[in-house]
Amino acid sequence: MRIAMIGLGRMGGNIVRRLLRAGHEAVVFDRDPAAIEALVSEGATGASSLTDIGGKLNGPAIYWVMLPAGSPTESTIAELVQLAHPGDIIIDGGNSFYKDDIRRAQMLRDKAMHYVDVGVSGGVWGLERGYCMMIGGPAEVINQLDPIFDALAPGLGTISRTPGRTAEMARAERGYIHAGPAGAGHFVKMVHNGIEYGLMQAYAEGFDILKTKKSDRLPEQERFDLDLAGIAEVWRRGSVISSWLLDLTASALAQNPNLDNFSGNVADSGEGRWTIEAAMEEAVPAHVLTSALYARYRSRVEHTFADQVLSAMRFGFGGHVEMPQ
Amino acid sequence: MRIAMIGLGRMGGNIVRRLLRAGHEAVVFDRDPAAIEALVSEGATGASSLTDIGGKLNGPAIYWVMLPAGSPTESTIAELVQLAHPGDIIIDGGNSFYKDDIRRAQMLRDKAMHYVDVGVSGGVWGLERGYCMMIGGPAEVINQLDPIFDALAPGLGTISRTPGRTAEMARAERGYIHAGPAGAGHFVKMVHNGIEYGLMQAYAEGFDILKTKKSDRLPEQERFDLDLAGIAEVWRRGSVISSWLLDLTASALAQNPNLDNFSGNVADSGEGRWTIEAAMEEAVPAHVLTSALYARYRSRVEHTFADQVLSAMRFGFGGHVEMPQ
Amino acid sequence: MRIAMIGLGRMGGNIVRRLLRAGHEAVVFDRDPAAIEALVSEGATGASSLTDIGGKLNGPAIYWVMLPAGSPTESTIAELVQLAHPGDIIIDGGNSFYKDDIRRAQMLRDKAMHYVDVGVSGGVWGLERGYCMMIGGPAEVINQLDPIFDALAPGLGTISRTPGRTAEMARAERGYIHAGPAGAGHFVKMVHNGIEYGLMQAYAEGFDILKTKKSDRLPEQERFDLDLAGIAEVWRRGSVISSWLLDLTASALAQNPNLDNFSGNVADSGEGRWTIEAAMEEAVPAHVLTSALYARYRSRVEHTFADQVLSAMRFGFGGHVEMPQ
Amino acid sequence: MRIAMIGLGRMGGNIVRRLLRAGHEAVVFDRDPAAIEALVSEGATGASSLTDIGGKLNGPAIYWVMLPAGSPTESTIAELVQLAHPGDIIIDGGNSFYKDDIRRAQMLRDKAMHYVDVGVSGGVWGLERGYCMMIGGPAEVINQLDPIFDALAPGLGTISRTPGRTAEMARAERGYIHAGPAGAGHFVKMVHNGIEYGLMQAYAEGFDILKTKKSDRLPEQERFDLDLAGIAEVWRRGSVISSWLLDLTASALAQNPNLDNFSGNVADSGEGRWTIEAAMEEAVPAHVLTSALYARYRSRVEHTFADQVLSAMRFGFGGHVEMPQ
Repeated sequence: MRIAMIGLGRMGGNIVRRLLRAGHEAVVFDRDPAAIEALVSEGATGASSLTDIGGKLNGPAIYWVMLPAGSPTESTIAELVQLAHPGDIIIDGGNSFYKDDIRRAQMLRDKAMHYVDVGVSGGVWGLERGYCMMIGGPAEVINQLDPIFDALAPGLGTISRTPGRTAEMARAERGYIHAGPAGAGHFVKMVHNGIEYGLMQAYAEGFDILKTKKSDRLPEQERFDLDLAGIAEVWRRGSVISSWLLDLTASALAQNPNLDNFSGNVADSGEGRWTIEAAMEEAVPAHVLTSALYARYRSRVEHTFADQVLSAMRFGFGGHVEMPQ
Repeated sequence: MRIAMIGLGRMGGNIVRRLLRAGHEAVVFDRDPAAIEALVSEGATGASSLTDIGGKLNGPAIYWVMLPAGSPTESTIAELVQLAHPGDIIIDGGNSFYKDDIRRAQMLRDKAMHYVDVGVSGGVWGLERGYCMMIGGPAEVINQLDPIFDALAPGLGTISRTPGRTAEMARAERGYIHAGPAGAGHFVKMVHNGIEYGLMQAYAEGFDILKTKKSDRLPEQERFDLDLAGIAEVWRRGSVISSWLLDLTASALAQNPNLDNFSGNVADSGEGRWTIEAAMEEAVPAHVLTSALYARYRSRVEHTFADQVLSAMRFGFGGHVEMPQ
Repeated sequence: MRIAMIGLGRMGGNIVRRLLRAGHEAVVFDRDPAAIEALVSEGATGASSLTDIGGKLNGPAIYWVMLPAGSPTESTIAELVQLAHPGDIIIDGGNSFYKDDIRRAQMLRDKAMHYVDVGVSGGVWGLERGYCMMIGGPAEVINQLDPIFDALAPGLGTISRTPGRTAEMARAERGYIHAGPAGAGHFVKMVHNGIEYGLMQAYAEGFDILKTKKSDRLPEQERFDLDLAGIAEVWRRGSVISSWLLDLTASALAQNPNLDNFSGNVADSGEGRWTIEAAMEEAVPAHVLTSALYARYRSRVEHTFADQVLSAMRFGFGGHVEMPQ
Repeated sequence: MRIAMIGLGRMGGNIVRRLLRAGHEAVVFDRDPAAIEALVSEGATGASSLTDIGGKLNGPAIYWVMLPAGSPTESTIAELVQLAHPGDIIIDGGNSFYKDDIRRAQMLRDKAMHYVDVGVSGGVWGLERGYCMMIGGPAEVINQLDPIFDALAPGLGTISRTPGRTAEMARAERGYIHAGPAGAGHFVKMVHNGIEYGLMQAYAEGFDILKTKKSDRLPEQERFDLDLAGIAEVWRRGSVISSWLLDLTASALAQNPNLDNFSGNVADSGEGRWTIEAAMEEAVPAHVLTSALYARYRSRVEHTFADQVLSAMRFGFGGHVEMPQ
């Protein structure tokens, strides 16, 4: 199949590469001409503008927008809607808020166009490992796009079949899923990222406890001189907590067991927060996912005003002096 | 009555003062001679050593130990047990762990002495406001000490009677309670402090949200230029969240609305942690009390190792760079 | 002054009463004619419809809407805007979301009307105790309404002045505050309620630890037979954690120390959740306020699906059977 | 090598089987004769009592105790110490508290015996998959036991080597590690289980949000009819959150997408709690690991007393009725 890719950053570029390797064709566009040229040299067709893309696609056109969520995605889709024709498909593969998908899908339906939202997991590893995709939109459009998703997905690989699955080999077993109508793809991806935050924080707290057990925060006779890199490594095989995130942690610790190349100033994207908002809309207690998000907020300031309020109260009721830093 | 006070710090000294004002007598001892002299000038009898105290008390002797929990209290009580006689009473008014009380009470019982644990709340304000006391030990010994506790307690004061209380005016309404056998006093005080941490953190987080609403973390049009000191003040009267801790907060904010005289490096004493241990022994979920304790831990480090593990994972799976600080 | 009150529930009715007692006049309307009659018998003027109100007010008219947040408030204000005239004032005294205030204020400004949002704390106690009010809107309109707010507020009362306050007696010291432009009143009230949740949960967890210490979840020799009503009472005087919420708890426990008249099925209103959304918009970690909200969600279901997922995983990796209930 | 296994439950029995398959020899004992017979039929040597074991081992004897932590393990080790000789090795492969290991190791050292603590992960899957082991004790003893650990461990398997590991193939890469002196093995296993709780709760909360998105807690037009089994499956390949725990979840959901065969009454073992105690000793904030533990406590009661306190307060300040159940 032939699709247009708009946005050739780390994700968009590699998605094109994986498609080309599978025999698909791609018309590519980015604000950065160098990004276009790089992919042209690998077999893609370059476009000089959004308008230029249309002529290079055989209709109905398929536009895959792979841009930062929020205004870059929003404005690009608005522009594409002006250029596209009835029957064309616009895919948002970024990290959009699922309620934006629902709104946009309605807008496109009003013009007889199709909107598909794809939550993509896999990061920089996706080119080799394949992309896990959670997809929202009309079934017939998703079916039409199946060769694209199939090429991008990891496939069965070396991962053994889940006991209890009895149906014929489903898409889910090859690494992509039609989650539901517009918005469902990004909703599932959003929860995926919420879980990711929680998993990461669980490992992070555990390694913090191990690391501090070595430190002078404890009396010398209570310390253990633990080998964190070795511990991460040993947990990779046969333990209950083996995972891909643990593999990454093991790799980071193998290279620098103190991780002092990292300041610990941790960003968060929209999905973590949207997951909490969804939990609140549903009245689902989500202590762990929320705490994981807050740990990131906290990592980015030296002291919160809350800390200062505590100090002020303590001073007020007991003349407590603060801890020496 | 006549009692000995061992430990004339902020708490011990003021307890003696309040007793003297009520017509009681006190023999006082501290490692710091100046602390002894100060109270002698206010009417107390000085003692030059633990041994010296005994001769100045009419038996049975009452020793009130008001020292930091842990080894200072432990070693002083061990020494007193050597000096005391059957029938004597040793009161631990510090912040001891209640399981230590249970052990020590048994030790004293074996020598026909009496052990009383008193959890004291009130801080530097207790001299004027009176001390709220939670007391563990044998009923007959507590009854014997009643004049002491009654003098130290706030009394009914201007606080209106609780609707629903129909019994005659109880000790609890005058600000002290016989909570149960040895250890029960400090157990109740421990939970009191656990609650205190939770309350403080609730206010602290609320004021942080108010404060940040003024800040450049939000786009200018979303900010409110709130008057934090005024808000704390307004909540003191008629609101559901009025409290003594709020009074202290209002005072601190009135003096310095930015609290920039406080670094926010917040200590924690044993009680917060012991409360969580008790919750875990009982399988009681205590999210709020625990989070309040952890906020204090977090306030004392610039970055946790957990933060660095998160950064390392993020780098691993997506080449994410860290947030600029 | 003369104002119209729309919504004569527990809050609206008592606000009218307090105004009448202070010599103000009120035109009252409610869907329930009995509610109108009750207040007419106490001196208010009844109105038979929103339209009917206008003629009974001397202009510029002041409308106080005291209805449930969301569509009742929204639709009533929409209707009033049709009936009102330039210069009229519409006050929303309910628990509206502050972003709705900002939107509505703009809508009224476009018609040369004035919008004022008032967050009111005090519950059923406000009639006697006075209402604590957090007010948003234009300064000149708030000033014009000052006699109303002054009559409703608690005033200085018996609560001592905050040390450090040096200015002349401010509104905040009498129990109301002009917090800022439209929305600021409800924003501050929202955070007030967020804090309230946190405070309540801190007490609740503490009393749970005390209660369970009596229970057979512990071996008999580790139990203390604590008097929860007495403990709540003793903390009311002289302790660091004395507060109005503690007063209520003491009253409830005095009447029924086991609280078995309450199922523990706890509702939450919008403010708790909005506070967390505000915290997330500001990237402020709010572990305690969030945990307090989640405890309420959790109180309303017997088992979460999350619990079942845990059970399923445990079964999967170890054949663990579930705990007997 | 030849070792004695005491305790032939699910773990102990399969450890023996894996050793036999690797050509080692085992003397086996259990209170249940049937458990002994089963293993004798697979090639082990049965023993009729602890005393009987000794004669069937060629010295120095190696005793592996695989019993529930606490008194079963404690009393068995105490008995073995009476039977054993200088130079003998006692291995505790259960889930003991690491401070118990430190104490016992000292006791054995005093008798010139050796103590080794082994934290074992792998559950019922270990027989096929191999056991991940975290080992504490003297280096020379661990080296002596290496053939045993090597046979039990998973080995490199199909899991790719961690990028950044440059040293020769270490034990950690084959699935076991000498973590440090006595207690270090169980300390690392304890943190492993603490992390496990956090990971499980992160998935559980995420699936709860997905599940509730299908439910009537939301207005119909906001629901998505999500396929939870498919979503778990799709995340197994190529996603950032793939893990062994997710594999188990996918399997459980494949068999019963509603998990209504599980009540959600979730037990916790000592390790979760000990991990939190360790965090508190080290002043490490561990919000996620603690919340995961508390979720399990909460899963086992219908209502907490804390919930009832909240209801009582709400009734007190506003006459709020409780939510209908």
